[in-house]
Amino acid sequence: MTNKMWGGRFQSGPDAIMEEINASIGFDKRLFRQDIAGSKAHAAMLAKQGIISKADAAEIRKGLDQVQAEIEAGKFTFSRALEDIHLNVESRLKELIGPAAGRLHTARSRNDQVALDFRLYVRDTVDHLDQQLKELQLALATRAEQHAATVMPGFTHLQVAQPVTFGHHMLAYVEMLARDRSRLADARKRMNENPLGAAALAGTSFPIDRHMTAAALGFDRPTRNSLDTTADRDFVLETLSACAICSMHLSRLAEEIVIWSTSQFRFVKLSDKFTTGSSIMPQKRNPDAAELVRAKPGRIIGALLSLLTVMKGLPLTYSKDMQEDKEPAFDAFDNMSLAIAATTGMVKDMVPNKDEMRRAAASGFSTATDLADWLVRTLKMPFRDAHHVTGSLVALAEQHGCDLPELPLAVMQSVEKRITKDVYKVLTVENSVASRTSFGGTSPRNVAREAKRWLKLLKG
Amino acid sequence: MTNKMWGGRFQSGPDAIMEEINASIGFDKRLFRQDIAGSKAHAAMLAKQGIISKADAAEIRKGLDQVQAEIEAGKFTFSRALEDIHLNVESRLKELIGPAAGRLHTARSRNDQVALDFRLYVRDTVDHLDQQLKELQLALATRAEQHAATVMPGFTHLQVAQPVTFGHHMLAYVEMLARDRSRLADARKRMNENPLGAAALAGTSFPIDRHMTAAALGFDRPTRNSLDTTADRDFVLETLSACAICSMHLSRLAEEIVIWSTSQFRFVKLSDKFTTGSSIMPQKRNPDAAELVRAKPGRIIGALLSLLTVMKGLPLTYSKDMQEDKEPAFDAFDNMSLAIAATTGMVKDMVPNKDEMRRAAASGFSTATDLADWLVRTLKMPFRDAHHVTGSLVALAEQHGCDLPELPLAVMQSVEKRITKDVYKVLTVENSVASRTSFGGTSPRNVAREAKRWLKLLKG
Amino acid sequence: MTNKMWGGRFQSGPDAIMEEINASIGFDKRLFRQDIAGSKAHAAMLAKQGIISKADAAEIRKGLDQVQAEIEAGKFTFSRALEDIHLNVESRLKELIGPAAGRLHTARSRNDQVALDFRLYVRDTVDHLDQQLKELQLALATRAEQHAATVMPGFTHLQVAQPVTFGHHMLAYVEMLARDRSRLADARKRMNENPLGAAALAGTSFPIDRHMTAAALGFDRPTRNSLDTTADRDFVLETLSACAICSMHLSRLAEEIVIWSTSQFRFVKLSDKFTTGSSIMPQKRNPDAAELVRAKPGRIIGALLSLLTVMKGLPLTYSKDMQEDKEPAFDAFDNMSLAIAATTGMVKDMVPNKDEMRRAAASGFSTATDLADWLVRTLKMPFRDAHHVTGSLVALAEQHGCDLPELPLAVMQSVEKRITKDVYKVLTVENSVASRTSFGGTSPRNVAREAKRWLKLLKG
Amino acid sequence: MTNKMWGGRFQSGPDAIMEEINASIGFDKRLFRQDIAGSKAHAAMLAKQGIISKADAAEIRKGLDQVQAEIEAGKFTFSRALEDIHLNVESRLKELIGPAAGRLHTARSRNDQVALDFRLYVRDTVDHLDQQLKELQLALATRAEQHAATVMPGFTHLQVAQPVTFGHHMLAYVEMLARDRSRLADARKRMNENPLGAAALAGTSFPIDRHMTAAALGFDRPTRNSLDTTADRDFVLETLSACAICSMHLSRLAEEIVIWSTSQFRFVKLSDKFTTGSSIMPQKRNPDAAELVRAKPGRIIGALLSLLTVMKGLPLTYSKDMQEDKEPAFDAFDNMSLAIAATTGMVKDMVPNKDEMRRAAASGFSTATDLADWLVRTLKMPFRDAHHVTGSLVALAEQHGCDLPELPLAVMQSVEKRITKDVYKVLTVENSVASRTSFGGTSPRNVAREAKRWLKLLKG
Repeated sequence: MTNKMWGGRFQSGPDAIMEEINASIGFDKRLFRQDIAGSKAHAAMLAKQGIISKADAAEIRKGLDQVQAEIEAGKFTFSRALEDIHLNVESRLKELIGPAAGRLHTARSRNDQVALDFRLYVRDTVDHLDQQLKELQLALATRAEQHAATVMPGFTHLQVAQPVTFGHHMLAYVEMLARDRSRLADARKRMNENPLGAAALAGTSFPIDRHMTAAALGFDRPTRNSLDTTADRDFVLETLSACAICSMHLSRLAEEIVIWSTSQFRFVKLSDKFTTGSSIMPQKRNPDAAELVRAKPGRIIGALLSLLTVMKGLPLTYSKDMQEDKEPAFDAFDNMSLAIAATTGMVKDMVPNKDEMRRAAASGFSTATDLADWLVRTLKMPFRDAHHVTGSLVALAEQHGCDLPELPLAVMQSVEKRITKDVYKVLTVENSVASRTSFGGTSPRNVAREAKRWLKLLKG
Repeated sequence: MTNKMWGGRFQSGPDAIMEEINASIGFDKRLFRQDIAGSKAHAAMLAKQGIISKADAAEIRKGLDQVQAEIEAGKFTFSRALEDIHLNVESRLKELIGPAAGRLHTARSRNDQVALDFRLYVRDTVDHLDQQLKELQLALATRAEQHAATVMPGFTHLQVAQPVTFGHHMLAYVEMLARDRSRLADARKRMNENPLGAAALAGTSFPIDRHMTAAALGFDRPTRNSLDTTADRDFVLETLSACAICSMHLSRLAEEIVIWSTSQFRFVKLSDKFTTGSSIMPQKRNPDAAELVRAKPGRIIGALLSLLTVMKGLPLTYSKDMQEDKEPAFDAFDNMSLAIAATTGMVKDMVPNKDEMRRAAASGFSTATDLADWLVRTLKMPFRDAHHVTGSLVALAEQHGCDLPELPLAVMQSVEKRITKDVYKVLTVENSVASRTSFGGTSPRNVAREAKRWLKLLKG
Repeated sequence: MTNKMWGGRFQSGPDAIMEEINASIGFDKRLFRQDIAGSKAHAAMLAKQGIISKADAAEIRKGLDQVQAEIEAGKFTFSRALEDIHLNVESRLKELIGPAAGRLHTARSRNDQVALDFRLYVRDTVDHLDQQLKELQLALATRAEQHAATVMPGFTHLQVAQPVTFGHHMLAYVEMLARDRSRLADARKRMNENPLGAAALAGTSFPIDRHMTAAALGFDRPTRNSLDTTADRDFVLETLSACAICSMHLSRLAEEIVIWSTSQFRFVKLSDKFTTGSSIMPQKRNPDAAELVRAKPGRIIGALLSLLTVMKGLPLTYSKDMQEDKEPAFDAFDNMSLAIAATTGMVKDMVPNKDEMRRAAASGFSTATDLADWLVRTLKMPFRDAHHVTGSLVALAEQHGCDLPELPLAVMQSVEKRITKDVYKVLTVENSVASRTSFGGTSPRNVAREAKRWLKLLKG
Repeated sequence: MTNKMWGGRFQSGPDAIMEEINASIGFDKRLFRQDIAGSKAHAAMLAKQGIISKADAAEIRKGLDQVQAEIEAGKFTFSRALEDIHLNVESRLKELIGPAAGRLHTARSRNDQVALDFRLYVRDTVDHLDQQLKELQLALATRAEQHAATVMPGFTHLQVAQPVTFGHHMLAYVEMLARDRSRLADARKRMNENPLGAAALAGTSFPIDRHMTAAALGFDRPTRNSLDTTADRDFVLETLSACAICSMHLSRLAEEIVIWSTSQFRFVKLSDKFTTGSSIMPQKRNPDAAELVRAKPGRIIGALLSLLTVMKGLPLTYSKDMQEDKEPAFDAFDNMSLAIAATTGMVKDMVPNKDEMRRAAASGFSTATDLADWLVRTLKMPFRDAHHVTGSLVALAEQHGCDLPELPLAVMQSVEKRITKDVYKVLTVENSVASRTSFGGTSPRNVAREAKRWLKLLKG
């Protein structure tokens, strides 16, 4: 079985092995738009600076447009013998326009060219992910507005702790994603410098204008040190770091959806769109999409780690090791995008079970803290003493087989005689959440206000 | 041997195991200053809002000052039975001031307290690392100014490619560190929000003023969602990400120092201060410090991965898993700080060997690109043709057993008759580097200007 | 705050920095027993081979015994100026016995000495962990025997799928741990070769007998290549890999315990010994120990990754980078041991809630597969058709608001008229599990047999 | 640019997103041979046990053969709507043979089917990698035999330490790879158990014979616990761990090749087959293949970490997260295989530069240890004293500007008068390596013997 499976690929001698390990066209062809955009900007600049003629620049531009059209139309034949996207494009350009193609590479090297292409690609990715994250925030804030007052249990240690609202829970994720977007925005700013013109590593003696190509390609400015420029992959690493943290956020919501969807919790129900059933157990709704989102950090953290490991201890400037930057990054970005899309779909799709969530929120003496706070506020007890009294009352309630709101006043007064019937007001879950009016707290009014604020920001 | 080594610790029953795995005081005592600062700000706010009396607040403040003094004087007895730094401090406070201590925890929970303490600690760490990185930049820029014109080989694939200057190489690291500092600054901004007041997870019904504690503790504002606040460890993860990338930068310089220090390269010499010798081989200078700096990314990436793995898939809000955030982070920060300090020391200490570096820079036809550029510029050849002609000339030089500057004009003209003696001007390494005047290029004038610019920025 | 926190340690100049980064005594003092055992074996061999005198060997042995006694009694002063455990021990030995101490290092180097010490330590660790894992298997198998017939739901996707028994579930972990132990045993065999005698890296010209020291130290044989020996850290990496997989297994059980302990599941109850309560919510049992066990893979995977990253791309033989092997490994081994101990404690402590588990097992049409299998077996339907019929019956049951065992025969026959009342026998959860008699299946008889088999193996 | 690049794939609604994230056929079609082999074994067993008819089994077998032929011929149309390889094969089988296809899935589930397929695939991979590693060992041992006496410097800290032989250095890697192969062999043994028959998770009530399918598929025995079987991915993790360590070994040799190939070291020369030149600098030989091998651990460690992270904390039994096991594993295995092939090619291709290596070995007082050992052996000095004397002699040699063999006897005697001219015998690099006759030492006779031993083992 082995032989067939592996195809004996590497028995075919050193040339085949070298081509197999060395060629990058299999994956870097993704960069064709960026490569062509960079070449156009470079050619225009060379012409402007008098390094090549305007006629040559015009031909190059036209030729590159045709190459791009061919690739987009699926009519381009990529050649592994030409190794990478740069040589594939340049070779075709030469076929199309002849000797002028040979002037395009003046004052440029593959080292700054690949640095440019990949940087442009990562920048595009950041823009795309940001847009997706914004849509996910919108979906979450929309649910938050709908459920600003929908009571659910707040958990610590997956144990019911205090009542909160479903809207508040949704907004917690809006905040996380806001940080994720902010991180991506910062990464974008930092990477938005033009590497083109660093040449092989030392800069060039041609009178190039790096500010001009920077402007043409949407960069804020050119990079300041040619050695650093060709040796740098920070822009990928930082974006992968931001993705790793973001995917971790999504995995937390995914885990919650998996748990909430069990027949033991029944907090939410996902439709067939995001679950798979079984023809034999039609009631079964396996939350496959949520599980896959939960798993994605594995891939994305793996990619981050891969590239950090590759870059560790590499002497300046370019080493071929750096070619290992693309495949893991592409895989991570694709999976990140997919995870956001799937999460957005689930957030829109899921139907919260208000009754079940309220019932769960009202169980487990979840308003004990409200009772303790009442003792502090009303009876001026030190907090630690109020804590102690509350503990005794909960123990009594447990003995009575009831929850706190059902515990008779007399029984309460047997522990602390100053307690009045006024206390019962703080013991319902509705009053509990309503009372949490501190900045950032879970009171429905606060949640509604925050949801509106976010919706305005996101739609604005 | 086993028994003695492991001490049979866990044979002693469930209580010992639980205490061992559960208690955090062994490592979180590091947070005592942050814990006490937070408690003081909280108490002042409670008094201002009328939640506790001004007298109680004054006592609490005084008591906390004493606790801090005791810890700083090494006179405080930490108790593992009291689990963590919060309870250790509070318990001692109670001994010192009595019942008033019991009012301090009003409208607060361990969940927002630990979130506050660790956030303050990470913020302090960021400030410290930033200061250290600035000093390292200063050391590098100083070397760059001294060696703006010191020629060395620029490498790709660890093969001599083109001449550059040592100063330019030093400034490449200044740029990397500038991005590192910029990442830390962004992380600092993002984390600089006050978690105090999120309480257990839902906020509180007490009329607290989170803006007041925010101001007192140097935060820009309070966090906006209490669930997110108690569940969030982004501030650690982002700082660890920035450290991982920074440590990777330092490992690259460390690898270079190791290679440069070999008897084969001899580009730099480190003094005894950063090498270890051998009593038997006194000439041996093992670059131990550089090797250890090279190894540090292992620890720091490990810590980042640890915490990402811990947080992945955790339901909101606080779970005990999150206690695993501190030890790896402390270890990573300590090692980061140590690596920066050691690198700064080495950068100041190392003595570049100008002769050896120039000799290496002038070998290996390193000015072939200059020759090709001359052909393009002077003879208007297309770059790809100039490339081809240069290849033939290098081959001839190899046959003649000389480098390009020694190749007779007649021989050059046998390949391309339009070549004139003017060409020799571009073939020396000094002229080569001088010609790289493009923005970010390695020309000594450019390097000197950049070094000055950085020194001004760093000292300003 | 910064200054005090960080103590300005590195302002004190290069010497302090170098000592800080270079010295390993802070952590390698753990290896004192291994270091002394190795030195004793070495001295005895040197004497036997006539390289040192028998009198010197006797003095050395006596001196080393005293050093060990001093360390064990806590009376030994470790010196950071002496860098590591080897020099600390040797220096004290010289104080105790004078010049003879100077002969101990004949035909030995710190490179093979540290390789020996750490290998012995890791071997001890493997033995210790194996013993702990055996105890955990015993605890699990004991629960399995008690609960061979206790019905619980088997889950896929955390959705109820088919009934299984609690004993069967416990035995699943026994199998995982058996693989873990088997991996550790294989690692032990592979590492059990004597590195002593590789000397600095090239072997030695002294007529040493490496087989003799191998036998004295419990090794199977000496290593075969001196360069490999001093450059090798496979034994740590392989042990860490085994620990990483093992910790992952424990984290799965820990996650289950966390979920089973929720008030929604209530499958098991942990006592106070492994939970923490809250004085205010005394009913709350936070499963802290389980959460910490769930988190431990973060640390252990982190350590594995750290060392792999450190070793990647290191030229032979010893580089100082390799000193970074110990701290992460120690941390990982300690946490591994702690996680096993805590898990063993929880397995013994937890009380399964039979009623709740049976109720859950009987819900959700969990015997639908049994129905389909009955159709195949009794009516000779193709499996895929039986699947389809069962789907229709489950849909009808859902409409009737009942589970399969309550669906009237007439209704069943309306879908497939050949169904007889005989079918009801396979629809109870007890009959379902009893029918799974295939090798490795969940039938109580099978589970009881397996549990007995394991108990015999483990106690034998 | 963004829109085009990302294609707006996920704007197309939940169905498209779910299919995109859920379907595995894009990568699990690799498993078609394993899937079909498993189905054939299953069908034969069902017939033998009387669960399906012999006629059906024969049809199934024939149909599956045709499916396999179609896939191998590239004539099979994979459908994403059919999700995975199992359903793609079964669906086509139904088209080919009709209703009998519906009986194949009796007493089987996708859960044990995928566990089987992937296990078979990993087993095949292990066999393939083992064969490749054996070929690499053969290449290394062949070089070792050729260069058993070729002197080169042995390095610690990349500083010349003692002379060794190139053959000895090659054999160090043979030993590492022997451990790698041994780890793979152990993993193979542990994984070689038949998962088929675990069914969905609980086993089955059909009278299947798992020992029969085990034998048919080359397994040693069936697995013992059905829950563990469907939840287990240890076999992938352990194989990835072994690959991670192996790839680290290769990266060390790759780093050495990169360093040895510099114009500063010039220890080896690689041909054009494994380097890339530059048309402009034809003398340049960038060691691309070595750099890529050096980088591969990033990918492979990343894959290991990915899967560990995915599996961490997953409740039993199957969760969809586990579908994330295949892509990283496939990528890691492919890259592992490629790295071994490229390394084998380089080992065969590289030409050691004996003169340069000998010159380097004789520099740097590399025989100082030999001198010290002579003092101990001949003059019976304690080792530490001999160390001291040697230090003084090296210092004198440094002052004289000569190496130890050129230091006049009188000068030596000025430090230690008992030194005789006999000492010069141990100071040449040839005599130094010849004297290292301890077991595992670098003496040419020892190296030649070891090389022969390995060649016999590997060819036998």
